[in-house]
Amino acid sequence: MTRRTITGFSNPTVKLLRSLRDKKHRKREGKFLAEGLRLLTDARESGRLPEMLVMADRRDEHPLLEALATEIDRSGGEILETSPEILSKITGKDNPQAVLGVFAEFDTSLAALDRTAAPIWLVAQALRDPGNLGTMLRTGDAAGAGGLILIDECADPFSAEAVRASMGAVFTQAIAQAPWGEFIAWLRQDEGQLVAASLRDAVPYRGAPYQAPCFILVGNESRGLPEEYEAACDLRVTIPMRGRADSLNAAIAGAVLAYEALSSLSPPKRG
Amino acid sequence: MTRRTITGFSNPTVKLLRSLRDKKHRKREGKFLAEGLRLLTDARESGRLPEMLVMADRRDEHPLLEALATEIDRSGGEILETSPEILSKITGKDNPQAVLGVFAEFDTSLAALDRTAAPIWLVAQALRDPGNLGTMLRTGDAAGAGGLILIDECADPFSAEAVRASMGAVFTQAIAQAPWGEFIAWLRQDEGQLVAASLRDAVPYRGAPYQAPCFILVGNESRGLPEEYEAACDLRVTIPMRGRADSLNAAIAGAVLAYEALSSLSPPKRG
Repeated sequence: MTRRTITGFSNPTVKLLRSLRDKKHRKREGKFLAEGLRLLTDARESGRLPEMLVMADRRDEHPLLEALATEIDRSGGEILETSPEILSKITGKDNPQAVLGVFAEFDTSLAALDRTAAPIWLVAQALRDPGNLGTMLRTGDAAGAGGLILIDECADPFSAEAVRASMGAVFTQAIAQAPWGEFIAWLRQDEGQLVAASLRDAVPYRGAPYQAPCFILVGNESRGLPEEYEAACDLRVTIPMRGRADSLNAAIAGAVLAYEALSSLSPPKRG
Repeated sequence: MTRRTITGFSNPTVKLLRSLRDKKHRKREGKFLAEGLRLLTDARESGRLPEMLVMADRRDEHPLLEALATEIDRSGGEILETSPEILSKITGKDNPQAVLGVFAEFDTSLAALDRTAAPIWLVAQALRDPGNLGTMLRTGDAAGAGGLILIDECADPFSAEAVRASMGAVFTQAIAQAPWGEFIAWLRQDEGQLVAASLRDAVPYRGAPYQAPCFILVGNESRGLPEEYEAACDLRVTIPMRGRADSLNAAIAGAVLAYEALSSLSPPKRG
């Protein structure tokens, strides 16, 4: 197996990898970073191999890491070794993980989605917090959603924070990005129920008539959903608010609705 | 109304306020900061007034802010005016809010809780992320929980990030902090059902026999709950995991269980 060693801070590969912390550079290069053996193992088990693996030259041996490196090498990927100091420079962290992978960004067009693949889909509009975005991917994975559709200007699902918060779900959930108009046009081409939490003209979320494929729409963290987006929904549901607050965190609202819809849409288990 | 003006970066009050960004100093002073008019208005409406209000000297006039300042002055609190630059220094933010309040930390002893005050309580063990902690406070407020009990070493509920993520619920939810042994001893003094999400010896979370007061326990973000803590629970429930992930984000798991328990414990609405 060929392993290239990088020792210089000003090496062009180090500069390239470091630049991937910025969205602009990720888009230009079409690549993103995922840090840590656990995340890379999740990716591998989901059939996603990095184009490049960067490992600390001073590290504990680990059979999963060796197996991963071998598989990347066989698939034509590149294996680099470097110092923990340079890994620290690349990731911007004082205590970086001992390994990171460079992945090609996925196709995030609506056309790539198969809406029949799952009973539930999560849809987020103008979601700004990458941690919330990653948490929605993780929740979607757990609740059996097919993926996450990002409407209008959202945080980047390929940012380090979103990837980390997704706990590997960035590799298992389909991800699409589209402006609202394009999303609605795509949605109405076929079956699909658009559902939002709302205070207007809504029914209780519990026991509401969810139908698969059910697209659960949550809005921006501070402004919620635009009124016309709510109006375009097929079903508006209310989640009880017993305290002073008039809303839930976007990822929390999505999770409560996703689990409610899951319960009503999934076939009961056979005893 | 007396308004003291602070112009110097090295003013002792500026130093004191700035030090409150550190947990150590918050504990020593018994004070914490809350930024922004919305949060301060939430606090006021929940019956919590800051001991000190710090306002930018160049700011838009706002009737809510004037009313707040008047009320603080009447209650014997202090009103300061300073430059946006000094507010920036205090908060460590490039674009600070135009107003912040200094609050006395609340009593966080278990003895101060009235367990009969609500059907649901959230309990978090070794929760490390202040954003998760604030989100749990916010969720608890919405789901009608009485408060949040923090077990073992958790993030600080009075940190800027937790206060902000709570969206004001830090002022409405009771908060207690205790080591596990002390919590269990307190819990068993009276009625109370301890419930945790678990994969062992558990029943489906949906329709499980929740009983008020129901204490919903979630564990650390990466390690989950210690086995002996799970074993001490009265009810262990499973949340479906349909994907690759074997767990949910701690705040998400707490929310899904809280809303399920709320649905089974709250009296049905009268038509």
